[in-house]
Amino acid sequence: MTERTLIKNLAASSDGPVTVSGWVDTVRDQKKVQFVVLRDESGALQLVHPRAEDADPIADTISALGTGSFITVTGDLKHDERVKLGGIEVLIGEIEVVSEALESPIAEDTGVDKRMDWRFLDLRVPRNNLIFRIQTTLEHAWRTYWVEHDFIEIHTPKLMASASESKAELFEVKYFDGKAYLAQSPQFFKQMAQPAGFGRVFEIGPAFRADPSFTSRHATEFVSVDSELSWIDSHEDVMRLHEELMVAGFTAVREKHGAEIEAAFGIEVTVPTTPFPRIPLAEAKRIVAERGYEVPRHDDDMDPEGERQIAAYVKEQFGHEFVFLTDYASSIRPFYHMRHEADAGITKSYDLIFNGVEISTGAQREHRIEVLEAQARDKGLDPEELAFYLDFFRYGVPPHGGFGMGLSRVLMLLLGLPNLREATYLFRGPTRLLP
Amino acid sequence: MTERTLIKNLAASSDGPVTVSGWVDTVRDQKKVQFVVLRDESGALQLVHPRAEDADPIADTISALGTGSFITVTGDLKHDERVKLGGIEVLIGEIEVVSEALESPIAEDTGVDKRMDWRFLDLRVPRNNLIFRIQTTLEHAWRTYWVEHDFIEIHTPKLMASASESKAELFEVKYFDGKAYLAQSPQFFKQMAQPAGFGRVFEIGPAFRADPSFTSRHATEFVSVDSELSWIDSHEDVMRLHEELMVAGFTAVREKHGAEIEAAFGIEVTVPTTPFPRIPLAEAKRIVAERGYEVPRHDDDMDPEGERQIAAYVKEQFGHEFVFLTDYASSIRPFYHMRHEADAGITKSYDLIFNGVEISTGAQREHRIEVLEAQARDKGLDPEELAFYLDFFRYGVPPHGGFGMGLSRVLMLLLGLPNLREATYLFRGPTRLLP
Repeated sequence: MTERTLIKNLAASSDGPVTVSGWVDTVRDQKKVQFVVLRDESGALQLVHPRAEDADPIADTISALGTGSFITVTGDLKHDERVKLGGIEVLIGEIEVVSEALESPIAEDTGVDKRMDWRFLDLRVPRNNLIFRIQTTLEHAWRTYWVEHDFIEIHTPKLMASASESKAELFEVKYFDGKAYLAQSPQFFKQMAQPAGFGRVFEIGPAFRADPSFTSRHATEFVSVDSELSWIDSHEDVMRLHEELMVAGFTAVREKHGAEIEAAFGIEVTVPTTPFPRIPLAEAKRIVAERGYEVPRHDDDMDPEGERQIAAYVKEQFGHEFVFLTDYASSIRPFYHMRHEADAGITKSYDLIFNGVEISTGAQREHRIEVLEAQARDKGLDPEELAFYLDFFRYGVPPHGGFGMGLSRVLMLLLGLPNLREATYLFRGPTRLLP
Repeated sequence: MTERTLIKNLAASSDGPVTVSGWVDTVRDQKKVQFVVLRDESGALQLVHPRAEDADPIADTISALGTGSFITVTGDLKHDERVKLGGIEVLIGEIEVVSEALESPIAEDTGVDKRMDWRFLDLRVPRNNLIFRIQTTLEHAWRTYWVEHDFIEIHTPKLMASASESKAELFEVKYFDGKAYLAQSPQFFKQMAQPAGFGRVFEIGPAFRADPSFTSRHATEFVSVDSELSWIDSHEDVMRLHEELMVAGFTAVREKHGAEIEAAFGIEVTVPTTPFPRIPLAEAKRIVAERGYEVPRHDDDMDPEGERQIAAYVKEQFGHEFVFLTDYASSIRPFYHMRHEADAGITKSYDLIFNGVEISTGAQREHRIEVLEAQARDKGLDPEELAFYLDFFRYGVPPHGGFGMGLSRVLMLLLGLPNLREATYLFRGPTRLLP
């Protein structure tokens, strides 16, 4: 391993010899002294070289340095309050250019599409790097919560013999002499863990939707955060799990990255209080209408503007960034959502809205096979095609429920990013398969 | 939430009223007293009901109980040393059949193929449930190691515009009006994190191989455990990371599940000592030949029997279950493996063998663009098709390397399972897409 000190650890190091490695951010090639800003995965550092009067190979190397080149420098660390960049600098003793760089085709003001073409350069921008360190912290906090609460991690297959949601958005795969489909969600397979007696499960993995939308909130491949648990009484139990997870995740992010996030995004991460506000959808629509917005839909669903409006109301009334909209109409929910005993027109389900945008759908699932079959038929589905799934309910199954949540959506809304692409390592859309 | 006590927590609970939920394992319906063995995700429990002399609705319910039905029972917990099953039993006060079960189509001696048809029932078997709790612990230990060592978690796309490994094993996806391919590994994209300045990354996610093999060690979809890190000097640094991860994972598994594993699989989990033995492949072949086994291959590769033989040698000589075979010939390694300075015929790469089977390949990657391009051409690849990948190396990139490892293979070999299917939640093979 190259013996190097991470830049973030230099401030706490004592003055003296040190080796650092990273890439060249900027070069100021002045007459008497040369400055290089070096970056690595942990931060930025000023390197300095006073030019010698005669032959000076180090100065020549620095003058020829291209931005983005990867270098290793050995030199003398000096703490100096006058240095704006962290109060330290390294006097260059040796410099090795490990990998030269062509000139970057993108700059800070380059449009998002071209930046995505050069995503590996775009990700060098410190705030972009920060997004994925936040993602790491968020996921690890969630998984730690799950593991500490005896959830089993599952990896459900992404290759399926049939659709799990709507057929319209299904990617078809040539599978030897036949066909397969890409999973639109782990729905059926995480439910399978329930008759399997796993009790409580989680998965963070890819899901695929052949959705030709070009909105800022859609992708053809996305990371789905899923959990499912047994022996619930209603969707209320799922919401309780869900809000505890959000608290665990946001607490970890705030602790580890709160200051960085404030500096880079101007956002103070708020750890939400529990319980999150819960508003039945019908009431939410009334509230939104009273605020002067009539949801322009013919079905019973909310629309994005309605979600923004109800979020604004919740923020004003309860000072909360989250709201559970509950009891969606059966007409707009999948067949496997359980319906209310007293009113089969509404389901035991919810959407979780965060900063005005839906990030998740959860529900109690219908586990009674006769009811489930009837609801499938009700939706015009062919029980034949669902046979393998319906079997899960014929051999004993506990009451259960869960949710699925878009990872990049959470990040986008947490950090106030303008679109999903910024919160995705490598975005996939209808016209985007590269790099 | 149904107020229930997990069975594993009953032993430490005091005698008195308790509610338990789970599924019926067995019923012994005797004249004077009825016994039910109840199972939940945490263990098994004896329920008891002395028959009343006259009308006894509880006895009637028990008599009608089908194996596999999910029930909730409220009753009196009693500690009693004479009860073989954990020294406790619950005297049934109330019993509710929550979900009835058809008779299970599988039994303990059912063949693996039919068990896979009914995987959700097969997973109820305690040792199968244990496999996935071990998986959870293993993954969480790995991720905790990575997070504590400042690795960034990435989710690379599974939809690609071109092949990342061999074209022969590529699944093709209809992608709107065009085509996409399923990622065979996150290779290119985890390498992308290096010029992106991420430093060190990891991912646990699915990978896809259109491999028509039917061996016990292959699947068309598998979970790949990947890591990649910057500023290495050689593949030795990758091996060092790799062995530390194995130690962290096995330590956690042994601590949490050591006793259960010994009981269920008759295996004592050994935490490996470091460094693992390292043997260059050419030497390994000599050793194997001396043991009387000539590898029947025309290329420079090892074969499965050779791997078993060298593992047996290592076990005898060093008492170790792991061995790194290093320095594979360039002829049998992908173009992106770095070759030795002194001998371009061998690569800075390794396979990790565990209990006689390969579980992982690792290497230092070639990061010098001219060399990389030449090696690609050398392998008959079209640099045009690799353009997006080759670009990663033109704008500055640190020396780097990493490995990919099959999750189910590790579990299979750790627990002495006969095939991958047993170690996979839902197996996918050339003729297996259901359930």
